[in-house]
Amino acid sequence: MSDDPAATTRPKAAVLVTGSELLTGLVQDANGPFVARELGGLGFEVSELMLVGDRPEDLRSALDFVSGNGIELVVTSGGLGPTADDLTAEVVAGFCGVESHLDDDVREVINAKIARWASRSGFDGAALDEATRKQAMVPEGASVLDPVGTAPGLVLRGATGPLVVVLPGPPRELQGMWPSALSSPPMAELLAGVPHAEPRLLRFFGLPESEIAATLREIETSGEFPELARVEVTTCLRRSELEVDLHPLPGAEPTAEALADRIVEVHRRNLVSADGTTTDELLARALGEHGLTVATGESCTGGLLAGRLVDRPGSSSYVSGGVVAYSNEAKSSLLGVPAEMIETHGAVSPEVARALADGARERFGADVGIGITGVAGPDGGTEAKPVGYVCFCVTTADGGVIARDPQLPGSRSDVRERSVDLGMHLLLRAAGGLPRG
Amino acid sequence: MSDDPAATTRPKAAVLVTGSELLTGLVQDANGPFVARELGGLGFEVSELMLVGDRPEDLRSALDFVSGNGIELVVTSGGLGPTADDLTAEVVAGFCGVESHLDDDVREVINAKIARWASRSGFDGAALDEATRKQAMVPEGASVLDPVGTAPGLVLRGATGPLVVVLPGPPRELQGMWPSALSSPPMAELLAGVPHAEPRLLRFFGLPESEIAATLREIETSGEFPELARVEVTTCLRRSELEVDLHPLPGAEPTAEALADRIVEVHRRNLVSADGTTTDELLARALGEHGLTVATGESCTGGLLAGRLVDRPGSSSYVSGGVVAYSNEAKSSLLGVPAEMIETHGAVSPEVARALADGARERFGADVGIGITGVAGPDGGTEAKPVGYVCFCVTTADGGVIARDPQLPGSRSDVRERSVDLGMHLLLRAAGGLPRG
Repeated sequence: MSDDPAATTRPKAAVLVTGSELLTGLVQDANGPFVARELGGLGFEVSELMLVGDRPEDLRSALDFVSGNGIELVVTSGGLGPTADDLTAEVVAGFCGVESHLDDDVREVINAKIARWASRSGFDGAALDEATRKQAMVPEGASVLDPVGTAPGLVLRGATGPLVVVLPGPPRELQGMWPSALSSPPMAELLAGVPHAEPRLLRFFGLPESEIAATLREIETSGEFPELARVEVTTCLRRSELEVDLHPLPGAEPTAEALADRIVEVHRRNLVSADGTTTDELLARALGEHGLTVATGESCTGGLLAGRLVDRPGSSSYVSGGVVAYSNEAKSSLLGVPAEMIETHGAVSPEVARALADGARERFGADVGIGITGVAGPDGGTEAKPVGYVCFCVTTADGGVIARDPQLPGSRSDVRERSVDLGMHLLLRAAGGLPRG
Repeated sequence: MSDDPAATTRPKAAVLVTGSELLTGLVQDANGPFVARELGGLGFEVSELMLVGDRPEDLRSALDFVSGNGIELVVTSGGLGPTADDLTAEVVAGFCGVESHLDDDVREVINAKIARWASRSGFDGAALDEATRKQAMVPEGASVLDPVGTAPGLVLRGATGPLVVVLPGPPRELQGMWPSALSSPPMAELLAGVPHAEPRLLRFFGLPESEIAATLREIETSGEFPELARVEVTTCLRRSELEVDLHPLPGAEPTAEALADRIVEVHRRNLVSADGTTTDELLARALGEHGLTVATGESCTGGLLAGRLVDRPGSSSYVSGGVVAYSNEAKSSLLGVPAEMIETHGAVSPEVARALADGARERFGADVGIGITGVAGPDGGTEAKPVGYVCFCVTTADGGVIARDPQLPGSRSDVRERSVDLGMHLLLRAAGGLPRG
C-alpha cells in the first residue's frame, strides 16, 4: 500500500462522442463503450460519457463541463472529416487556447492516402486537395496521429486543463488509431503516472445479481477484509450470464484477489470462469481439446444457436452443421423425429428435444447433438406449456444425456436469446469445459 | 408557416442515464437511444445524451449542466431501486428545490406488487418494508408513475428549470412506464406546446451515404427548395441499409414531403420503402400476401439468416426451416449438393449457392429457397475467392432465379451480417415485396 493519497483513487477521464445521428436514437454508439472499456483497463475511472451533436458550441460546452470535474483526460470521437460541419479539431484548439497552422507533412500523408483512391475513381484532384487542407490544420503543440482512414488524430493540452485525445468517428478508424494514441508522447507521459491495478473478472451462469449482493454484504459485515472499500465491484447481467468485475484501487490487489476467491468459493456451482473467459471461448477450447464436433437441431431458436457457434473463426473444425426444423414435417423428415412422438408428447416436449439432438448428431455424423424446442411467444402458449417453456437436450455419441426444460422469462426475443445462452452453457457442460465443482 | 419565432425551432431535451456499469464499457446502454428516439418523434431536439455514474454529485452536476443549455425537458433513467446507492429521486428533488415525504398510497402499491413474490420466496417482510419505504418517498408536487417493476417513476419541476421525468433503469421497466410518463399531467401540458411535425423516414439498400449527400448538394444548389434549411436530414447507414430521416421544423412539412419525393425519384433503384417500413416487415408481408413459404440453405452465415427470418412473431406460417451446411458432407447429404459440383466449382461458388437454394426448397417443400456460401474469413481466402466473397442464390418453385456473388467488405462478423442483410433483400425481391422501379 502507498501512503500517497493521490494513489488511493483512480484518475478521472471523460469520453465525448460527437454525432447528431447518435442523438436520434437510430444508431447505437460503439465508440463510447470501446473507449470507456479501454480507459478502465488502463486504470482510469470514466466519470462521464457524453453524446453531443455536431454543433461546435455543444462540443465546447461539454469540454468546459467535464474539465470542471477534475478530469485528467478527455477522449473525443468524431468531427474530423473534410466537410464544413467537421469542427472538432478547431473547437479543441480553442478549448486549449492554441492556434492552428497548416502542416505540410500531414497534408502529404493525407494526400498520399487518398491519391490511389482518387485516381481510380476519377474524382477532382483540386477539390480533394482543398478538403485535405482542412484536415491538415494542426493545433500548436499537438501530437499528430497518422490517419487510419483519411483523418489524422490529435493529442494536445492547453496551459491548464486535461489532456485531450481527438479521434475520428468511424469505429474502425478510432479503434485502429487507439494504439498510436496510447504511445503518443503526451499520453505515454500521462499513463506513466496512472497507478495501474489489474482488475479481476468473474463469470457466472444462472446466478441472480441479488445473490452476489448478499454475498458482498455478508463479507462486509464479517469485517474480514478491512480493505474492502478499496475494491470497486460492478456486476453486470448479460441475459443469463453474470459478470462480476472487481476493480482494485492501487495497492488493493491482494484484497481483490482474496475477495474474488471468496466469491468463487461461495458460488462455485454457477461459475463459468474465474478469469473472465467467455462461454464461447471455453466451448471452442473444450471441443477442440477433445476433438469433438457438434450439430444442432433447433426449433424456437431458429438457427441462432448455430449462428452463435460459427461466430468464431475456425469454428468449421468443430461445427458440423444444423437444421432449423420449425415445422413438424421438417422435424420428422430432416431429423427423423417420429410423427407419433410429436403427436403424443407435443412438438415442445423433452422427448422431441432429445430426438432433435439425436437426429442432428446422426444426420451430421457429429459427436455432440443439441435439440431445442420451445414456445417463444407471443402466441402459442398453453397452461401446461406457457410462453417461455423451452426444452433442451444435449446427447453425445457415448450415450451421455443432459436435459433441461425451464420456463424462461421475457419477450419473444428474450426467450430466444436466453435459450441460445442456455444451449451454449449445456454444450459447454457436455464438452467438459466447465470448472470442476 | 407560423410567424411565431418560437415555432421555428424544436424545443430541446436532454437524456441522463445513470449507472456506473455503463461507464465500464462492458454493457451497452439501451435507455438513451430509446428515449432519444421517442423524444425526436414527439418533436423535441435531443441536445445531449449523458451517461453518468451512480454518485449523487455526478447526477446533480449533469442536471445543472444540461439545464444551463436552455433545455425544456430532462429524462433520467436509473437509480430508483431500494438500495442505498439508488439516489436519483433524492437528487432530482434537491435539483428542483423541493422536499420529499413518505407517500402511503405509493407504499401500498409497491408493497402489493411485491407481496406475492415475497410470500412465495420466503423473504423477510420487515426488511422489504424498509426498502419500499425508501422507494415511496415522493418529492413535493411530483406526479407519481405506477411501478412496472417495483420502482415508481416521477414527473416534477422546480420553480424554474426544465421538467424532469424520472424513470427506472431496467429497459423493460423504463419502456413499460413510458406511455404513463407521456400522459402524466405535467408532461401532457408540455407536449401540448411542442410544435409537432411529422418526420419522414426513407429506406434504401446498397446506397452509399455519399450519394445522398451529393443529391442534397445538387438540390441545395438548384435553389428549388427555399425552405430546405428548415428540414433536418440525418442519414444513418446500418450495415447495408441506409436510413434517411427527414425532420421538418414546424411548417416545413411540405418541403420535407417534396424533398423526400425527390430523393426517392433520384434513388428509386435502391429504394426499400418510402415510409420507413423495414425489409423484415416488407418480406413478412409479401410472403404472407402471396402465401409463400421459405427455406434456407446456409453455409457461411451459419443459421443467422434463418434466425433473422423467425425473429418475427407468426413467422412459422411462412418459414419452413433451414439447414446449416457448414461442411461439404452436410451440403451433399442434407441438401443434395452433388459432391462433383463442390469438387469442380468449389464449396464457395454460384453453382453451389444455387444447389443449396434448390436443396433447401425441395427438402422442406417450400416455395422459395435461398442458398448462401462464402468466405467469411479471417482465413480461407484465395486470390480468386478472397475473404468477403459470398455467393447468393434465391430460387422459386416456378423456376425463378436471382443470383449474386459480391465481394463484401469488413471483418468476419461484418461479412456475415451484410450477407444476412443481402439475403433478406434478395428474398424480398423474389417475393415481389419491393416498390416498383
